[in-house]
Amino acid sequence: MRIPAKVRSVTVDASPPENRLDRRKTRTRAALVKAAQTLIAAGQTNVPVLEITQAADVGMGSFYNHFQSKEDLFQAAVDEALDAHGAMLDALTAPLTDPAEVFAEAFRLTGRLHRLVPELSLVLIKSGTALVSSDRGLAPRALRDIEAGIEAGRFTIRDPQLALVAAAGAILCLGQFLHDNPDRDDAAASDQLAEDLLRMFGIPADEAHEICSRPLPDANPK
Amino acid sequence: MRIPAKVRSVTVDASPPENRLDRRKTRTRAALVKAAQTLIAAGQTNVPVLEITQAADVGMGSFYNHFQSKEDLFQAAVDEALDAHGAMLDALTAPLTDPAEVFAEAFRLTGRLHRLVPELSLVLIKSGTALVSSDRGLAPRALRDIEAGIEAGRFTIRDPQLALVAAAGAILCLGQFLHDNPDRDDAAASDQLAEDLLRMFGIPADEAHEICSRPLPDANPK
Repeated sequence: MRIPAKVRSVTVDASPPENRLDRRKTRTRAALVKAAQTLIAAGQTNVPVLEITQAADVGMGSFYNHFQSKEDLFQAAVDEALDAHGAMLDALTAPLTDPAEVFAEAFRLTGRLHRLVPELSLVLIKSGTALVSSDRGLAPRALRDIEAGIEAGRFTIRDPQLALVAAAGAILCLGQFLHDNPDRDDAAASDQLAEDLLRMFGIPADEAHEICSRPLPDANPK
Repeated sequence: MRIPAKVRSVTVDASPPENRLDRRKTRTRAALVKAAQTLIAAGQTNVPVLEITQAADVGMGSFYNHFQSKEDLFQAAVDEALDAHGAMLDALTAPLTDPAEVFAEAFRLTGRLHRLVPELSLVLIKSGTALVSSDRGLAPRALRDIEAGIEAGRFTIRDPQLALVAAAGAILCLGQFLHDNPDRDDAAASDQLAEDLLRMFGIPADEAHEICSRPLPDANPK
């Protein structure tokens, strides 16, 4: 079977732990990453390693078995949060065949995430514009979907990287906007921006509107 | 004379200093703000007040005559850098009558700024997504231009605030993209994204292209 274009270039290491020691190592690492994600979401990355290991309930010594530095841990925390979200999007959009709908659905689901999983949303926002050049998480997936849309003749985009710049900027600033304006409907705002981006990518207005009004699959965010 | 819509809601305090003491105070404050902008651009905001006053070549004691805290100073540094840039854009776009061209010209000039004035560009990027909700600097000006475009029947935008989200996201991530990809032409990328945004706002493709190909006024960035 041919691997579908939209999962071709993004892989996540999911090899299972092999024995008890491996399982413990995996748990320790996961606890550190989880603690780091909580600290990033709280804007408290300026804490000593000791405090991180205490929050993760692991021994101070085990930190350096997994990470060379705090920066190393925080980078892993951002990468893994966005990889996990990206993998979920890949799974949810797998049944779709139209690259325009794949892009729109991923954007609409990610827009809703800002309210559904505020912690992950804050990790995304705090990681900031670095998102646009990351080879992990959302950017490579969005670029893949944009290129698939061009290849399929759905998008009339001259420069896929600039289309990615627009999409990454929109999803980042949408998150900030939704946090700053709790009265705004996250679903309506996400759908409107996805529709705006589709029009920017060359989809006719009424079709863009219809695509972004379709029902979404259930996202199980945790 | 009626004040043109596009300068109505954004004002900058420019009252001149009155005597020698006032002039000295103004100089001290300006030196602190300039030092803070340099530190922000370098990503070094985690420094003691003493270091900031030394970099500004002012007495440690005078800091608290002007700012209540470091955070207060850094916020002022961001606000004033973007207000100054915004005021320059207002002056440069003043001769234009088409709101679509006003928006495009401001975006194209700001895109070029990422290479022309890297220090201001880094202040903009580091201030991050907070840009989208700021009542200073670029966001209120962009919203004003977007609303003028809707009022003039040029833009078919359902939600001006979401159009601002898209524009703010695009200018932020464009900056990051240009810093990460020094081989990319900043002028071409800025013009392409401005054209993409105009199309998103409802301007026909060929007209958006033509508007974003027009010659730009000379921006004197410093």
